[in-house]
Amino acid sequence: MDEFRDRKVLILGGLGFIGSNLAIRLVELGADVTLVDSMLPQYGGNLANVEPILGRCRINFSDIRDRHGLDYLVRGKDLIYNMAGQTSHIESMTDPMTDLEINCRSQLSLLESCRENAPDVRLLFASTRQLYGRPEYLPVDEDHPTRPVDVNGVHKLAAENYFAVYHRVYGIPCVSLRLTNTYGPRQQLRGDKQGFVGIFVRMAIDGERIRIFGDGRQLRDFNYVDDVVDAFLVATFHDELAGRALNLGSPRRYSLLEFVDVLHRYCDFEHEIVPFPPEHQAIDIGDFYADSSRFTEATGWRPRIDLEEGLRRTVEYFRPRAGLYW
Amino acid sequence: MDEFRDRKVLILGGLGFIGSNLAIRLVELGADVTLVDSMLPQYGGNLANVEPILGRCRINFSDIRDRHGLDYLVRGKDLIYNMAGQTSHIESMTDPMTDLEINCRSQLSLLESCRENAPDVRLLFASTRQLYGRPEYLPVDEDHPTRPVDVNGVHKLAAENYFAVYHRVYGIPCVSLRLTNTYGPRQQLRGDKQGFVGIFVRMAIDGERIRIFGDGRQLRDFNYVDDVVDAFLVATFHDELAGRALNLGSPRRYSLLEFVDVLHRYCDFEHEIVPFPPEHQAIDIGDFYADSSRFTEATGWRPRIDLEEGLRRTVEYFRPRAGLYW
Repeated sequence: MDEFRDRKVLILGGLGFIGSNLAIRLVELGADVTLVDSMLPQYGGNLANVEPILGRCRINFSDIRDRHGLDYLVRGKDLIYNMAGQTSHIESMTDPMTDLEINCRSQLSLLESCRENAPDVRLLFASTRQLYGRPEYLPVDEDHPTRPVDVNGVHKLAAENYFAVYHRVYGIPCVSLRLTNTYGPRQQLRGDKQGFVGIFVRMAIDGERIRIFGDGRQLRDFNYVDDVVDAFLVATFHDELAGRALNLGSPRRYSLLEFVDVLHRYCDFEHEIVPFPPEHQAIDIGDFYADSSRFTEATGWRPRIDLEEGLRRTVEYFRPRAGLYW
Repeated sequence: MDEFRDRKVLILGGLGFIGSNLAIRLVELGADVTLVDSMLPQYGGNLANVEPILGRCRINFSDIRDRHGLDYLVRGKDLIYNMAGQTSHIESMTDPMTDLEINCRSQLSLLESCRENAPDVRLLFASTRQLYGRPEYLPVDEDHPTRPVDVNGVHKLAAENYFAVYHRVYGIPCVSLRLTNTYGPRQQLRGDKQGFVGIFVRMAIDGERIRIFGDGRQLRDFNYVDDVVDAFLVATFHDELAGRALNLGSPRRYSLLEFVDVLHRYCDFEHEIVPFPPEHQAIDIGDFYADSSRFTEATGWRPRIDLEEGLRRTVEYFRPRAGLYW
């Protein structure tokens, strides 16, 4: 981890959920960190996320859709963590063009900018399991076909493919990690168009009645955000991963009902099971859990925080900070 | 084929290579045909292509990047053949943003327009083998991983995925056909940034010295344009193909040297073998031929014109029309 000392690091989406947790770690490791965030109102950027490192990193408020600014931001950087994105699957269907601009066009534009302004940079990209679509077998490994079921998945896959092409043709080292359900402190809890995890955590803390869609038996795997940050850090200098896309995930799976049961340990709320609303049903992927053994074999990484401990820390973080997050 | 009589048909890229050949067939079959073409100077649109049907179809000069015009063009249509595209792999690397606008954004914009203005339309999309990347096995079937090696392949794959998502979520019937090397009358022969087929045919007719990159042993399969037009027509009303992407191809493969040998029968020219230029080498896919048996099983389609007969007709078409095409 000493490799990060004095490295010039750019984190896109740096005030968001995973970006800010990564930023805190990198500042602690002695890196020279610049955060870029668009602060789009319905997105994850939140100044409260970087409270522990205010004054020890640079914050640049800008949108990755602005290519000209990006050209200056990438210059001289050693590492770029590309965590900015439109993350709502539902929003990608109701406003597909915005998803295209942020999750597709801006990724290509970032690579073009790096090719011209920072050809020696290393890039790490936060991708998603969503690009697999409905699993044909479980757990889903990297050989599984990619058949995205929504516009968000189409664009994340296109972005991964850009990174692979720019690695192959221009030699820019790019690694994509396909994230499963990530949760933890600094997660976006506002709104009801992100994944269920944030919505459930917020409602549990507020003591509201949680509605579970379907029958509650859908299986998922979860990664606590610190484990995901670790994964990005260990992937950074593994040259043999360049140009590849690898799964994160967890060997332990939970049904949505089991997830809610864990939440009940820390919060006082009720829950009920309701039928899927049609707009969710149309893009639901059924059971999903990932096989991350390829990434583990390459790097030694494995998740260390289980859901019980992770949700405990999450509730502990958010309970006194509700006013800052929703 | 009587199903096409009086159908209201929109062909995007209708003055281009495959679009114009399709238009001529559809007019002969009694369809009510509207052609849309941007007439971009380096692209395939050419008024000479539709000389046989001038006055028997509608021509609308416009660019599919213009969403507002598209909204009016799709209204009331029964069938849309989506053949417009940026087709140069090399150009997709030197000007990736234009490739994105045409091959990715405009496809999403077309689907959004259909969803709002023509929800009952059937869509057929001209996709490409390029999205497979370098083959891991041969012949390449539809289960082969999709690992595009250039930006063009990334975007064609994204477009296919849009069509599959819009079929699944909104019920719009969309079929993608993954074309291999298509050749024949009305092909674009200008410039040197398209595939080798057009370049070789033009140089052969002009008696120029053809340069073959590599060792000339790269294997390819070829489809004569009339066979490709047939494939789009038979796919149109096969409901079980909706939402899917299927290969075209040919059971007969030729090396580039064999291809040039066939050309020698009809034209007087010389050829030589030269090393790959680096920008071509970087995105070359090696041997490639497709397994189209899934499409054959579903529809009964198979290619009928072999390369010998197809190139004879191609040279016969272009020789007296050189001035109209280059």
